[in-house]
Amino acid sequence: MNNFDYYNPTHIVFGQDRLGELDTLIPKNAKVMITFGGQSAKKYGTIDTVKAALIEREIIEFGGIEPNPQYDTLVKAVKICKDEQVDFVLAVGGGSVMDGTKFIALAAKHPSDQYQEILFHGFSPVPASDALTLGCVATLPATGSEMNMGGVITYMAQKYPFMCPLAFPKFSILDPDLTKTLPKEQIANGIADAFIHVIEQYLTQDTNAKVQDRIGEGVLKTLIEDGPVTLADNENMDARKNFIWSATNALNGIIGAGVPQDWSTHMIGHEMTAQFGIAHGRTLAIILPNLLRERKDKKRAKLIQFAERVWDIKEGSDDQKIALAIDKTEAFFNSLDIVTNLTHYGIDNDGIESIITNMEKMGLTALSETGDLTLDIVRKILIATK
Amino acid sequence: MNNFDYYNPTHIVFGQDRLGELDTLIPKNAKVMITFGGQSAKKYGTIDTVKAALIEREIIEFGGIEPNPQYDTLVKAVKICKDEQVDFVLAVGGGSVMDGTKFIALAAKHPSDQYQEILFHGFSPVPASDALTLGCVATLPATGSEMNMGGVITYMAQKYPFMCPLAFPKFSILDPDLTKTLPKEQIANGIADAFIHVIEQYLTQDTNAKVQDRIGEGVLKTLIEDGPVTLADNENMDARKNFIWSATNALNGIIGAGVPQDWSTHMIGHEMTAQFGIAHGRTLAIILPNLLRERKDKKRAKLIQFAERVWDIKEGSDDQKIALAIDKTEAFFNSLDIVTNLTHYGIDNDGIESIITNMEKMGLTALSETGDLTLDIVRKILIATK
Repeated sequence: MNNFDYYNPTHIVFGQDRLGELDTLIPKNAKVMITFGGQSAKKYGTIDTVKAALIEREIIEFGGIEPNPQYDTLVKAVKICKDEQVDFVLAVGGGSVMDGTKFIALAAKHPSDQYQEILFHGFSPVPASDALTLGCVATLPATGSEMNMGGVITYMAQKYPFMCPLAFPKFSILDPDLTKTLPKEQIANGIADAFIHVIEQYLTQDTNAKVQDRIGEGVLKTLIEDGPVTLADNENMDARKNFIWSATNALNGIIGAGVPQDWSTHMIGHEMTAQFGIAHGRTLAIILPNLLRERKDKKRAKLIQFAERVWDIKEGSDDQKIALAIDKTEAFFNSLDIVTNLTHYGIDNDGIESIITNMEKMGLTALSETGDLTLDIVRKILIATK
Repeated sequence: MNNFDYYNPTHIVFGQDRLGELDTLIPKNAKVMITFGGQSAKKYGTIDTVKAALIEREIIEFGGIEPNPQYDTLVKAVKICKDEQVDFVLAVGGGSVMDGTKFIALAAKHPSDQYQEILFHGFSPVPASDALTLGCVATLPATGSEMNMGGVITYMAQKYPFMCPLAFPKFSILDPDLTKTLPKEQIANGIADAFIHVIEQYLTQDTNAKVQDRIGEGVLKTLIEDGPVTLADNENMDARKNFIWSATNALNGIIGAGVPQDWSTHMIGHEMTAQFGIAHGRTLAIILPNLLRERKDKKRAKLIQFAERVWDIKEGSDDQKIALAIDKTEAFFNSLDIVTNLTHYGIDNDGIESIITNMEKMGLTALSETGDLTLDIVRKILIATK
């Protein structure tokens, strides 16, 4: 196990019928901006319930935060926060709304109006000294944004990850009932997203971090068991709760503490979303199987462990176990109605080259925890995925 | 899964050679009280290293916090904190020093000098509004005190648990090198303590909380694998790190979120420590096997899961699996040189009656998450343990 720092101060408020507690979670005298995405939060009454819980507080609504939230949209909210002296931002939505609201919270206290500066620190913390306080009402189990300090914003048609300790939500309400109106496709993408969040921290160089490994395996097994049940049966609250808590634990820092992390699948996926508009979780599921096949020697020890412990593959040679585990992973994504070849999404050789060219422009030329996943290898992975 | 709140803001600083970071972890202008136990922290140089890291800060040393920390000892530290206007308390030690320092931190801001009032809230949070800020340098993997809000204090010869969100350490340094000078007996007791912390949150009524269950099982399996290695081989740093991080995760709240908890073994154990001076972890290991045998019908579903997943028992009837899992658990404690019968510790029928009488006095008459573990059943368990 490597040395590590672990810090996560988000207060999780988990369970049904808890939106009323917003009144005690947010300061009485706060001027609150409620941020949300499309009309579903309005249509299904979530925004009304939230507003009712906030009682006498002054409230500004800011809707229209799109999937893969756009810088230009968020800057509008930042201006309102500054003009209106908002002191609390409350994200009501999924990963995009929460990520976007983290950006709003940081940008509203940024020392200049060059807010894009927040986006240029890669995986290093943004050196911010202040931010608006942030809370979340999470409506989509997937990204883990409800319990971490990171986000991804689209700026000038490129996706930029950022992280900052000031972007930890003060609290996040995880009410499973709020996820029941989600389209099936979003549930499926969420299962894949959470699954691959674990994989990027788990299928890496082995550092004998047994607790972290086993938490990762536990989350994966739970997603495999209860993700499909949630997808198939909207009323199975037991499965839904396990899926939600899996997705949060997949990216709250606990699995990645003290281990190398490989975010290659995400880096390639971000390009596919930016250029071809494919939903984030789906891009990851498309890329991962062939990335694992290509990198199986690099990830050998952990792939064998993954095969044995997550997929219960006990028979066969190590190579057979690895091959079967990757096949089972791809079949799992397919079982969620996620097609895992590029042709299906209209991406041909030109599309692949365009992904490569853009990754080069973004400086993403040496991926993985060992820095040896080159763009030539990315091309090979994408061609194998046609 | 039940509704739950999860909140744990402690910053974990894990790894070798990190004591120097105390300078950035504690405010520059803080007046710091360093609390510790016996002379080993001095003898092995830990206190000197800590003081060197704190550089120009004004420091008061308070040593002599005993195992099962005594109210009267701690009150002396509280008086010094108030007289000298200490603003930061730094615990350097194991569970007793950390627990005691949490009490000092709360008592120093208690509205009166009736500090014992802090101890009379059971498992409800102490309604405190202020406390000194607290940090830890943890030297014994066992109690989880380094990453939770609880403690246990001995007052008038009785052990009192308390908890308060203000008692979360701001940070805890977990440096495996600091644990290398521990006597083997303390390592063994720490393994048992951490193991049973998981058990009290895991072997309870099943609420289908799959992530929590699997984290618990992962911690148990890691303790079973790497606890004995740490005990046998002082130089095996890989195993030691896993043992330490297991012990912290055993009681940082994540396993117990959204599930019923049964602290019966602890409640009985506290009496054995208070009356007979047996080390805490050891009392738990003595009691647990016969408590499980006595309560096997109440805990049936989870005991079968425990047998299959933690002890890999796949053969036999459910009853056989349960019996074998409990036997293996007891044999595990015995393999750590922990004798698990009362006679060995000089506790006879009179001793058992004295434990029962005292538990009655303390109002501990309806234990377990279902409240139906009566003192008659406690007597049965203790007689079976002779």
